[in-house]
Amino acid sequence: MSDRPHTPLLDRVNVPADLKQFSDAELRQVADELRTETVSAVSETGGHLGAGLGVVELTVALHAVFDTPKDRLIWDVSHQCYPHKILTGRRDRIRTLRTKDGLSGFTKRSESPYDPFGAAHSSTSISAALGFAVARDLGGAPDYGIGDAIAVIGDGSMSAGMAFEAMNNAGHLKKRMIVILNDNEMSIAPPVGALSSYLSDLYAGAPFQELKAAAKGAVSLLPEPFQEGARRAKDMLKHMTVGGTLFEELGFSYVGPIDGHDMEQLLSVLRTVKDRATGPILIHAITKKGKGYAPAENRDDKGHATAKFDVITGKQKKAPSNAPSYTNVFGNALVDLAAKDDKIVAVTAAMPDGTGLSLFAERYPSRCFDVGIAEQHGVTFCAALAAGGMKPFCAMYSTFLQRGYDQVVHDVAIQRLPVRFAIDRAGLVGADGATHAGSFDIAYMANLPDMVVMAAADEAELKHMVATAAAYDDGPIAFRYPRGEGVGVEMPEIGEILEIGKGRIIREGARVALLSFGTRLAETEKAAEALSARGINPTIVDARFAKPLDRELILDLGANHECLITIEEGAVGGFGSHVAQLLAEEGVFDSGLKYRSMVLPDTFIDQASPQQMYEVAKLQAEDIEAKVLDTLGIARIDSLRA
Amino acid sequence: MSDRPHTPLLDRVNVPADLKQFSDAELRQVADELRTETVSAVSETGGHLGAGLGVVELTVALHAVFDTPKDRLIWDVSHQCYPHKILTGRRDRIRTLRTKDGLSGFTKRSESPYDPFGAAHSSTSISAALGFAVARDLGGAPDYGIGDAIAVIGDGSMSAGMAFEAMNNAGHLKKRMIVILNDNEMSIAPPVGALSSYLSDLYAGAPFQELKAAAKGAVSLLPEPFQEGARRAKDMLKHMTVGGTLFEELGFSYVGPIDGHDMEQLLSVLRTVKDRATGPILIHAITKKGKGYAPAENRDDKGHATAKFDVITGKQKKAPSNAPSYTNVFGNALVDLAAKDDKIVAVTAAMPDGTGLSLFAERYPSRCFDVGIAEQHGVTFCAALAAGGMKPFCAMYSTFLQRGYDQVVHDVAIQRLPVRFAIDRAGLVGADGATHAGSFDIAYMANLPDMVVMAAADEAELKHMVATAAAYDDGPIAFRYPRGEGVGVEMPEIGEILEIGKGRIIREGARVALLSFGTRLAETEKAAEALSARGINPTIVDARFAKPLDRELILDLGANHECLITIEEGAVGGFGSHVAQLLAEEGVFDSGLKYRSMVLPDTFIDQASPQQMYEVAKLQAEDIEAKVLDTLGIARIDSLRA
Repeated sequence: MSDRPHTPLLDRVNVPADLKQFSDAELRQVADELRTETVSAVSETGGHLGAGLGVVELTVALHAVFDTPKDRLIWDVSHQCYPHKILTGRRDRIRTLRTKDGLSGFTKRSESPYDPFGAAHSSTSISAALGFAVARDLGGAPDYGIGDAIAVIGDGSMSAGMAFEAMNNAGHLKKRMIVILNDNEMSIAPPVGALSSYLSDLYAGAPFQELKAAAKGAVSLLPEPFQEGARRAKDMLKHMTVGGTLFEELGFSYVGPIDGHDMEQLLSVLRTVKDRATGPILIHAITKKGKGYAPAENRDDKGHATAKFDVITGKQKKAPSNAPSYTNVFGNALVDLAAKDDKIVAVTAAMPDGTGLSLFAERYPSRCFDVGIAEQHGVTFCAALAAGGMKPFCAMYSTFLQRGYDQVVHDVAIQRLPVRFAIDRAGLVGADGATHAGSFDIAYMANLPDMVVMAAADEAELKHMVATAAAYDDGPIAFRYPRGEGVGVEMPEIGEILEIGKGRIIREGARVALLSFGTRLAETEKAAEALSARGINPTIVDARFAKPLDRELILDLGANHECLITIEEGAVGGFGSHVAQLLAEEGVFDSGLKYRSMVLPDTFIDQASPQQMYEVAKLQAEDIEAKVLDTLGIARIDSLRA
Repeated sequence: MSDRPHTPLLDRVNVPADLKQFSDAELRQVADELRTETVSAVSETGGHLGAGLGVVELTVALHAVFDTPKDRLIWDVSHQCYPHKILTGRRDRIRTLRTKDGLSGFTKRSESPYDPFGAAHSSTSISAALGFAVARDLGGAPDYGIGDAIAVIGDGSMSAGMAFEAMNNAGHLKKRMIVILNDNEMSIAPPVGALSSYLSDLYAGAPFQELKAAAKGAVSLLPEPFQEGARRAKDMLKHMTVGGTLFEELGFSYVGPIDGHDMEQLLSVLRTVKDRATGPILIHAITKKGKGYAPAENRDDKGHATAKFDVITGKQKKAPSNAPSYTNVFGNALVDLAAKDDKIVAVTAAMPDGTGLSLFAERYPSRCFDVGIAEQHGVTFCAALAAGGMKPFCAMYSTFLQRGYDQVVHDVAIQRLPVRFAIDRAGLVGADGATHAGSFDIAYMANLPDMVVMAAADEAELKHMVATAAAYDDGPIAFRYPRGEGVGVEMPEIGEILEIGKGRIIREGARVALLSFGTRLAETEKAAEALSARGINPTIVDARFAKPLDRELILDLGANHECLITIEEGAVGGFGSHVAQLLAEEGVFDSGLKYRSMVLPDTFIDQASPQQMYEVAKLQAEDIEAKVLDTLGIARIDSLRA
């Protein structure tokens, strides 16, 4: 506690309404204190730092000018919401961020009325703001009413088609709503795409000194009905509105660019907009990710996500790792294969680092494509690359691939095009919580005809699966693997090309067969050890494939064991369901096979460590052991006595 | 055959290369003949007429100027591909369109090398063209190489975010590729959204007489490097390029607007673009949906989709219907409920007619929202409407809801917001084939925590489910129903609010329990009749809910029958999988219950009548009967003898 920063003004803010007591100059000081408090908190918890630091002034200004929670303030993605949480009654818990039973790292409706719309995936905020604006005008929200609807969205998020869809609709409906484009020329990775260059051009000719001088004239930037208040900055107008057209063409009034760290300018623009806006307005604010904390500003990713760190030096406190991460195993394996096969190309949707493709991009820049936050386009782009004779690897997190699902069905599966899906962050992911869990991909991929679906049981298996996917050219193929480090197995020099649809027997036993799909294999083996001590010697199989299933092996397991249990890191509808369908069709159940399927529970699990989450999910070794004992009708207490 | 139009030039075209023999004037005649042939063919088959008629000249011009199939020509959605099919070696089968074993109503890779990329869902063509362009430049496609990549996309399709994502990426990569914006101010419904108004403005000031005069000067519309060839039309340039900016801002060169029915102009522009393009170019062509066939031009939907018709009168030959369509039952039920509850609002993604919301839109225009082809935005918009106290019905086809899947997971399910999903076209849909089948929604919805999933067994049940969804406010709820007419049951005056998670017993029997989810109930009942004749008297249950399951009822069925069979119109991973999970967890399998699950087969089923498709799927009454007999170990032949 002694290290906590001195924050005399911030200490007087329990809820945003408390900001109304301050002068504009004091609000500026509140922002400074808020920045220090944010750095201090994240140094203890780790998390998303850079984005929050970039919007400290904006956060204070918005809460000072508008009347939250009646005015609905929606943070896109919400990596940048920590300062907002500090101002909205959650300062006392801010040092529990992203931990079990602590604050979520994202906005969350169940956490606070000041979070009117949860976020975590990109580009939803304009749709959400429009929904609130329309609900307001139709008389919705009986509780405390709905005032303004305000979306704060980054330039990276603006590149997703969904944002365009929402603006297109908002420009048509003409409801009063406010979109603040938080333009820091950074999403997680440096921005890509034509929109990004366009945005750069917009403010290339507008130095901030001039902007500052024109701050009080901001009213003149507003559309015609408001211009009666405009006096100065006549020539400012000229170059400020030039190029605002893209948004104007979509029906928005465009205000900007403004300096998102200049409190005076922010307050002036927001007050004017609040007083006078009628239809949809876009305020273009230029900010700097990581602003005001040198160690963040100096990092390539501007302190996007960080482990706990030392506030003075910025040095992160990471635990040493014993095994390579799955992400790196994938990235390195792909680079190796690409050296021998110039048809291999890779596609990421704004996550070159997160997906492990950075190395590939460095080595083969002309064969690596960052399409921006654009999973729909990315998947179909891959489909056409495959149709054009290339071997595309589409590297996306499980949870983000959901955004390209129709394209997977329609452009890849129905056309049976050999796109290779590298599905990272499969299963529960830890601190990012429910929104980032990869729970549904086994189900939504494996029920597509002609789709091959694999899961890696460990990092060596992943290397084999990358090689298998590269070699497979008969249709689409997917392989999934979790967040985090491998289990430390010896890595093969070269990935082996696996036989499609064949599992591997890990251990031959009797009575009980444990059929694992994915990285629960390690827990399954632990469970088997514990069971051995009780005189039960289970067979263990690593299924490798959810589709096509190893029919022969599975039917054999069913025929020769009293009990068959599947284990996977996914929701019902996936691997276990395909196994059950096979067993049913072949009449294996008819003879009384004791079948069970261990899947993720039917609930969204809040942030915690991955292990804590798997404890909640009851997919740990002791849960597998308990399931076996229960299924065999052995009371655990008896069995412990034996 | 005697009614076939006289088409002397068209008769000389077997493949597009044959067009090279004709003069420009003759190409114009080819287009006229192609239009007549298209009308004649569709009058026999029914199908999508208006879109094809609108691009007859464009189709001829593209194939005359470019070298397909080496040049990859990609039709967005491909409702407009019939003239293209006639020109590309499929004229002899054009009168088999959309029938079993006939031509698909869409482009399809497996059908012809002239269809380099299959389509049916909107807005994929720019992504696909970019994929081919990139593959070309990386040396892909060993067969006959890749030349130009050309996407033809309508103004409606351009409103989808995916098209924006693709343009944003294409503008960044700067590969040579051609996008033809086929602007007919119509998608299926009249266009909505700000982009649409913007496009109208683009050509509002450019009368076609002037355009025509400027045709040969089209070169002057091209970007700088090509302008050395420009001579006249200096002042044309001024108003033609005005406002081209939205596309230019995304990195495209903009050419247009041009008259898409003026062959001379089309050929001139396409030849110039082919000769001189370097980066991405957008050609803005104005066309008229239904062009040249008065009965289509005069219809509100411009002859979008039609039954077989009389060529002279345009009168459609529809079979009289005996029961209301599910779509209309939904639409009417919602209108009735909305009269009593002003919080009910409805959202469609460019399908007001297809989803049955037209009536609602007419009655309650301020409460009905057509968001454009924008399922991602549409779903999140609904989530926020719910958060704002409204009761949104999100009406989408099963296959299109796939496009908003992440938004369903993330913005609706995780936030547990009471959005009501009205999922039309569940199961197999007939003439539109595999791309429009609603096969996966049970699986992808029912594995989401807190999602209620219902299926209507008949049209009365649908009315109950609309009422149930309106009344349910505890979280998201979905109900699915098929394309086509109901079964003719008596309709209740008022929809009944069903108890959540409770099925209904249709018939009490013994030995065999048939557990149906959805409209296979009628076939199930037929199967039971047939079985009764053999002395087997099955219990029949309409599950109503895939989630939450009626645990008590299902466990009871399992405990008291020798055999339990689930039946659904969906892929594995859905209802049957949830039932199997329950039976497994509760140990019901352990006693040797003969369990089977009848689902859609693991294959994409080509177009045919819905009944023919369900025969292929083996989900007809005789298949259910056979499954029962097989499961009970009764050889059918013996049983017939008995």
